[in-house]
Amino acid sequence: MYEILFAHISNYTFISDPEKEILEDKLEHKKVSRKEFLLTEFEVCDSYYFVLSGCIRLYKNTDNGNEQILQFGIEKWWISDYNSFETQKPSEYNLQAIEDTEVLILKRSDYNYLFTNVPCLNTYFRLMMQKAYSASLKKMEIILCHSAEERYQQFSTSFPGFVQRIPQYMLASFLGFTPQFLSMLRAKKDS
Amino acid sequence: MYEILFAHISNYTFISDPEKEILEDKLEHKKVSRKEFLLTEFEVCDSYYFVLSGCIRLYKNTDNGNEQILQFGIEKWWISDYNSFETQKPSEYNLQAIEDTEVLILKRSDYNYLFTNVPCLNTYFRLMMQKAYSASLKKMEIILCHSAEERYQQFSTSFPGFVQRIPQYMLASFLGFTPQFLSMLRAKKDS
Repeated sequence: MYEILFAHISNYTFISDPEKEILEDKLEHKKVSRKEFLLTEFEVCDSYYFVLSGCIRLYKNTDNGNEQILQFGIEKWWISDYNSFETQKPSEYNLQAIEDTEVLILKRSDYNYLFTNVPCLNTYFRLMMQKAYSASLKKMEIILCHSAEERYQQFSTSFPGFVQRIPQYMLASFLGFTPQFLSMLRAKKDS
Repeated sequence: MYEILFAHISNYTFISDPEKEILEDKLEHKKVSRKEFLLTEFEVCDSYYFVLSGCIRLYKNTDNGNEQILQFGIEKWWISDYNSFETQKPSEYNLQAIEDTEVLILKRSDYNYLFTNVPCLNTYFRLMMQKAYSASLKKMEIILCHSAEERYQQFSTSFPGFVQRIPQYMLASFLGFTPQFLSMLRAKKDS
């Protein structure tokens, strides 16, 4: 299972065999069941999670009692509350498995050791964060510039498998409209 | 002027004097006038820009003839179209100075040389990208979870100087509502 991560790192930068050993020694492997939490709000986030299989959602409980999903983490994607991790302040977010999921965990207690002794991780995570930031700006553009119907079309064209896989009410939350509206759009598309 | 950048890097990681010399030798200093462009859509983005003074906006010309602002870069902030920079595909965005601005430019032609010979840049940009990504998720949450009025209140409480500085129609675009609506909110606040 570490091979999935090593292959992913190798797509972006060189990682030596001794570095792989250090990483394998420090990362923790965990299976989480559907609906299980990796982080709940008011906790301090102490880990980065690399999804080997399954899917994690990052969401906020809003003042009006809804859940606002901000990010999904599927296979070969890192997910965390990086702000809480960095500042060690309590998180406003929740990380929850929406399918049975397997993750590799990079813990804060090993953070300095790992980034010092496996320096290629700096390059790798620089590029991961850059990709995540670019994707986030793209999503913001889609939300701010397009109607809900256009948003759904853009998203389902770009990520057809994802749209099938994610429960409808979660996809609606992620794209910023009501489940009823999404249901109407889907019916219109299928008709 | 390089000292501003070196001090900023030192807030996040150690940079040695020889590394500073390499960086100073490669970075380009540029003054851009208000309304001048650093990047226009369909060009490939070939630089990262560090704002020493002034302000840059990243925006998209939308299909309906509007400008959608996605990011501002003020003092001590890096700005670029990182996706175009990384993939070398034409950009969909524009980078334009909205005040007389001074920047330091890290060019793609020096990218590999710099990240190899000044390895602390990997740590520094990893943390810069992580901060930018976290801020982008926070903005998305504000846009998706709050009314336009709440968005404006949150933003003006968090960044009062910024709200005074940015032209009203640009702030409205950034926060995702019409200039007329922002004008009404401001009038209400001042009354």
